[in-house]
Amino acid sequence: MFQHSIQPVSHDAARQARERLDHLTKPVGSLGRIEDLAERLASIHGDAPLARYDRRCVLIFAGDHGVVAQGVSAYPSEVTPQMVGAFLAGFAAINAFARSAGAQVFVVNVGVASPLPVHNALFDLHIANGTRDFSLESALTDEEVDAALAAGARAVTRMCALHDPQVVALGEMGIGNTTSAAAIVTALIDADARDVVGRGTGVDDAGIARKLAAIDAGLARVDRTDWRSVAREVGGLEILGLTGAILELARLRIPILLDGFIVSAAALVASRIAPASIGYCIAAHRSHERGHVLALRALDLVPLLELDLRLGEASGAALAFGLIDAAGRMYHEMKTFAEAGVATALETA
Amino acid sequence: MFQHSIQPVSHDAARQARERLDHLTKPVGSLGRIEDLAERLASIHGDAPLARYDRRCVLIFAGDHGVVAQGVSAYPSEVTPQMVGAFLAGFAAINAFARSAGAQVFVVNVGVASPLPVHNALFDLHIANGTRDFSLESALTDEEVDAALAAGARAVTRMCALHDPQVVALGEMGIGNTTSAAAIVTALIDADARDVVGRGTGVDDAGIARKLAAIDAGLARVDRTDWRSVAREVGGLEILGLTGAILELARLRIPILLDGFIVSAAALVASRIAPASIGYCIAAHRSHERGHVLALRALDLVPLLELDLRLGEASGAALAFGLIDAAGRMYHEMKTFAEAGVATALETA
Repeated sequence: MFQHSIQPVSHDAARQARERLDHLTKPVGSLGRIEDLAERLASIHGDAPLARYDRRCVLIFAGDHGVVAQGVSAYPSEVTPQMVGAFLAGFAAINAFARSAGAQVFVVNVGVASPLPVHNALFDLHIANGTRDFSLESALTDEEVDAALAAGARAVTRMCALHDPQVVALGEMGIGNTTSAAAIVTALIDADARDVVGRGTGVDDAGIARKLAAIDAGLARVDRTDWRSVAREVGGLEILGLTGAILELARLRIPILLDGFIVSAAALVASRIAPASIGYCIAAHRSHERGHVLALRALDLVPLLELDLRLGEASGAALAFGLIDAAGRMYHEMKTFAEAGVATALETA
Repeated sequence: MFQHSIQPVSHDAARQARERLDHLTKPVGSLGRIEDLAERLASIHGDAPLARYDRRCVLIFAGDHGVVAQGVSAYPSEVTPQMVGAFLAGFAAINAFARSAGAQVFVVNVGVASPLPVHNALFDLHIANGTRDFSLESALTDEEVDAALAAGARAVTRMCALHDPQVVALGEMGIGNTTSAAAIVTALIDADARDVVGRGTGVDDAGIARKLAAIDAGLARVDRTDWRSVAREVGGLEILGLTGAILELARLRIPILLDGFIVSAAALVASRIAPASIGYCIAAHRSHERGHVLALRALDLVPLLELDLRLGEASGAALAFGLIDAAGRMYHEMKTFAEAGVATALETA
């Protein structure tokens, strides 16, 4: 449903941006990743980077996971609605980071197993009370997969109507979702789960063994070449919501800041549905999860930050808003040698 | 003159901050470097981190280097005043980054060899028209060393009177100053110059050979155990201005964001004058210069960002303002489990 409406990012715009970057009053390439970012933003907009990225949104998808019954997480599923409550009340880490960056936080309930309060920052697009335990049966039906993708797109539509963002940070909350993400990444990059699985937010050795056993059991049913098989058998509602959001944001040509491992799993699914969507993604943060490096490599994305975060909830993505704005301003507010009338010494010496 | 007025950072405050961090509604340690930053800020203030770091200043020291006559730089000394002009006109990279972060930029002329315009953001504390060629003779006199340190302190005083900053990013501009910085770092960490010297903003192989020859010649006169000998023989006016600024900011207990290699050389000198001053320093960015890693290791500082910048002028430091603010807000705006009344599941599960 998305494949034909996402345009590839513009290589012409990237080339023109690089041309200007190379003539700004600084040694060529001396702003490193910030120049790369400006070039990337140009390719996303199909034009120059924006002069400012003031309107910033954080979009967090929440859902629960039946596989938690296998003891794969350090926390019970009750923590998912508690943390959503914290996001809405404004005292979670992401709220502090978002306020620091001047960003609006929205939460999407695609699959939390417990009731949530009504709140104007909460989009109720609930599909099911979490996934089924994928170590025993399919996590989702094909219809639920499609509903989660559609919910992601609808959440983007609502967010855009409310705040018209120039850049969006994507994040997630869902106890057990590192297990689902690890299964997805293992399947889509065709790896061994032992190379992908990490400790999540703090599971012990026995927990890791349970995670691996669950993933192996789930992946036994999976056709690794078919994203839909992967999504249905081991997916998560919030992960597929994120996939739908990535596809819709790409369609709208809005830059996407990816948070950690779980969001990268969602991006991998997006890359199989519509490869062009990844051109709109910027990896904000490299998390501790082992599989994250592999997922980013498969996506050909290099993260901007490495701050040892392992929280999720878009915390890493929100810390990169400032770099996006700095790249846009640098592009527009610095002068070229010609504009500045500065001696060409910097060019020719 | 500074040794007795700089208090060590407070380990008690750091411990109390960590205690609160460990009880916030997130898994212990899951915000990684941002938690470390909050703890560091607490130790700097001798209390909690500030709730906001809104008042931000960039302080750039500018000076020229006689050793440029040896062909150690890709650019002529004329570029130093041109770039200072760009900082004052507002179209350099640091201006774009500072505006993005809501920071004020001030420039200090401690030793630019050409006249500079009068400007309210330029502190004229000129000592000499650059250093002498340290490959042939002492770069500075003892009196000039003291004057540069004092100029650094005076610049901080003026900046504080104008803008009362809660955090300061330090940077530099001075064609040839990677050569002086490499000589300082080589001497103070007692290394071989070949392990420290890099390409600056873009010198070629022959230029590197000339850099090494100049450094070896200068260091032949140096007592490596005596910071004053190092500063006098191979120092730079803007580098010692930065040292003076670090010492004064430490005395005032204001957090200091160090930019790249040259500022780290200034911090190394500060560490020899008053070791306690380094407790107030936060390494913002790891630059490409080889010696930077060695200098940071000697200072026991781990940089926050690695964005392949190699420009100087506080560009890397300015990109870290947001992380400081995020750390302060996280500390104050997140709730503890007790404050939140959230189930203690996160603590006990």
